[in-house]
Amino acid sequence: MPASPANDPSLHSWIDIRPTDDFPIQNLPFGVIDVPDWGPRLAVAIGGYALDLYACAQLGYFDSVAEDVPELGAVLPKVFRRRSLNAFLKLGPAAWRAVRERVSELLRHDNPTLRDNELAMRTCLLRQRDVAMLRPVKPTNVTCFEASRTHALNVAQLLGGANSLGANWHHQPFAYSGRASSIVVSDTDIRRPSGLHVPAGQTEPAFGPTQQLDFELETAFVVGQSTTLGTAVPVAQAESHIFGVLLLNDWRARDLQRWLAQALGSPVDKDFISSVSPWVVTLDALEPFRVTGPAQEPEPLPYLQVSGEQHFDLHLEMLFKPAGSTVAPLVLSHTNTSTNYWSMAQQLTQLTANGTALEAGDLCASGASSGLTSGALGSLAELTQGGTQPLSLPNDLHLSYLRDGDTVILRGYAEKNGLRIGLGEVHGTVLPATT
Amino acid sequence: MPASPANDPSLHSWIDIRPTDDFPIQNLPFGVIDVPDWGPRLAVAIGGYALDLYACAQLGYFDSVAEDVPELGAVLPKVFRRRSLNAFLKLGPAAWRAVRERVSELLRHDNPTLRDNELAMRTCLLRQRDVAMLRPVKPTNVTCFEASRTHALNVAQLLGGANSLGANWHHQPFAYSGRASSIVVSDTDIRRPSGLHVPAGQTEPAFGPTQQLDFELETAFVVGQSTTLGTAVPVAQAESHIFGVLLLNDWRARDLQRWLAQALGSPVDKDFISSVSPWVVTLDALEPFRVTGPAQEPEPLPYLQVSGEQHFDLHLEMLFKPAGSTVAPLVLSHTNTSTNYWSMAQQLTQLTANGTALEAGDLCASGASSGLTSGALGSLAELTQGGTQPLSLPNDLHLSYLRDGDTVILRGYAEKNGLRIGLGEVHGTVLPATT
Repeated sequence: MPASPANDPSLHSWIDIRPTDDFPIQNLPFGVIDVPDWGPRLAVAIGGYALDLYACAQLGYFDSVAEDVPELGAVLPKVFRRRSLNAFLKLGPAAWRAVRERVSELLRHDNPTLRDNELAMRTCLLRQRDVAMLRPVKPTNVTCFEASRTHALNVAQLLGGANSLGANWHHQPFAYSGRASSIVVSDTDIRRPSGLHVPAGQTEPAFGPTQQLDFELETAFVVGQSTTLGTAVPVAQAESHIFGVLLLNDWRARDLQRWLAQALGSPVDKDFISSVSPWVVTLDALEPFRVTGPAQEPEPLPYLQVSGEQHFDLHLEMLFKPAGSTVAPLVLSHTNTSTNYWSMAQQLTQLTANGTALEAGDLCASGASSGLTSGALGSLAELTQGGTQPLSLPNDLHLSYLRDGDTVILRGYAEKNGLRIGLGEVHGTVLPATT
Repeated sequence: MPASPANDPSLHSWIDIRPTDDFPIQNLPFGVIDVPDWGPRLAVAIGGYALDLYACAQLGYFDSVAEDVPELGAVLPKVFRRRSLNAFLKLGPAAWRAVRERVSELLRHDNPTLRDNELAMRTCLLRQRDVAMLRPVKPTNVTCFEASRTHALNVAQLLGGANSLGANWHHQPFAYSGRASSIVVSDTDIRRPSGLHVPAGQTEPAFGPTQQLDFELETAFVVGQSTTLGTAVPVAQAESHIFGVLLLNDWRARDLQRWLAQALGSPVDKDFISSVSPWVVTLDALEPFRVTGPAQEPEPLPYLQVSGEQHFDLHLEMLFKPAGSTVAPLVLSHTNTSTNYWSMAQQLTQLTANGTALEAGDLCASGASSGLTSGALGSLAELTQGGTQPLSLPNDLHLSYLRDGDTVILRGYAEKNGLRIGLGEVHGTVLPATT
């Protein structure tokens, strides 16, 4: 794939953007905004603003693109007036790239089209704080991978007492299916779930609110191009099916999980809710941040063999704001997606190897991206040794698992040569159980 | 719930229906038909015919119902011109019952409305063999339960060498999430899936087509009324969220499953495809067939306690037609859903206990309904002791797992006092692997 002109590091916009902002002109992630009185529409983030793609299309700003990409032209402007990116994703990579590159042109410092048309600017450019962000995609399928070897080992030790992974772990990316209804956008409150667990000091199970509410620091990739049932995707072509990446907070109930003695595959301890960040950063925008991943030993079988830089150098941060706190959130952990053992391409190929179909808007979560050091772990269970060694925080606070009112914030960004491409944030605050 | 007048065993239709037919006037299951030139529409099965609900609505046959149930009236006739039952299900139980009871009236032997109007009859009543059946629902979520204790024990023994179930099995229905894209309607061919497995006589894994293609004889319930994220459904109200029941063939690749050493939760060995029967039999129609299920010992905790007849006396048959055979299919097994340990109400309550949301059209599969005798097992793995004791069939055929060209047919029906309420059939034929 040739680099997109929208990635040019020398570009700058007529919109004022701080160097630490997640959304410079080289990023241009896609999301869905809900504007009071106007309803939902697709948008691109630029600095602190959202560019309303539907309004832009109505003003004719995509007419040239519509000519070049007829499948997009046929559905403009209404494809931008939807509650999810799905219909736009179905148009395919040519449409995604053409729109991103046209947006880049419109926002370039020397382009007067929008810059010097105050009425149009006021129509198309909305402050992010004035709009509500909706869930960016409506997934048909949700897949939960376990891409991090360190995380897999930690979970095996904490839940099963095992000191090594099964031989099969290194031969294929593990995954299980998730629940589409439970995918919510950032800022959705997290109701504490109930279930069976063995309360501390007891031997028999009881039903009630989880006492070990945890979460996992993850990214997920968004499927763009669908596949046909019964057809596998060769690993060399896997990335052409990926539209972009977002942050995913996979909330977990560790006591419910331990009672099931089933690390994988149980909806009881995890399917109740997962939060995603509102802006999907395109794989195109992440192109400059490719890196190699960990050595894969034993070598994967041919269907999973890839060469070159298949991982992305994405920093991930876990932040925590205790209930009632009014000060800035505390950083609990700092890790990187390039510590994942399996690449996104390998995950996607594994998923389709048995003929499973992908649909536009599907989500594939990485599992917690735990790094090798103690400050790089992707869940509270790992940071606190299963809750036995609470973290000491300011104000005499000891954190093992989440309490009602606690807020978790996940952040992600790539950074190189002064250019920062951010994933934004995903927030969630714990509400007390109802049952 | 008072018995519906549509269940009256003395009713008979002006359409000629054999006593062994699955679809007498007391059944009236819902499905989606695709009519050449007309497109998809909702229908009700009666004998060998499909009653086109959209055509009936256009002819005014639901006008009286529309007055009684305004939420239905507001969306008639277009709610019947859809590719799935979902929009109709969202209208709720009052609408489902009103439509079924009105259809019952129209088809009653002494009602001349349709019977004596030849043009209307030809418009509304189509031979099932002249229409294509579509997948009846578009599930947002698919959940796979393991409701049968016998099946759970058999799988634990075959895959893990265990002779008993974990203590937790009897405390709550186990489940994991499935894949919505992989739900296909009966008669869809089954492409043999590929994956990692250890070939016979070897110790290292290889990638290739499964050599142990199996399936499971299951039913699934269709969610009618949705729930809200964060809200549990009390077990006494669980059935009000269930619209009906269909047959589900959960195709499995046992060697892929064994390699993962993971009985539950892996999409590799099961998420590639599951076939469902095209007609959804309503819970209303099954009301006369309630029975008590197996004793539950230890007693479930209060959130799962129910009294009365929570199971349904549904016979299930597994039939097999070897590749190339032109004779009638062979019956391999005969079991009953009432052997399931957990009731549908308990499954649904367990699923929502942690706040998981249900959506109209969701599917909840039972897992194989294996009975206690050797002729009542719900999968080939169980019938052949993991493939080690092949079944001896006519013409010197020995069956362990499925070969290319083999066809599996699942049937289900309730029968009492001469009345038969059938689920119909679900068929699938194995195609060779492509990879």
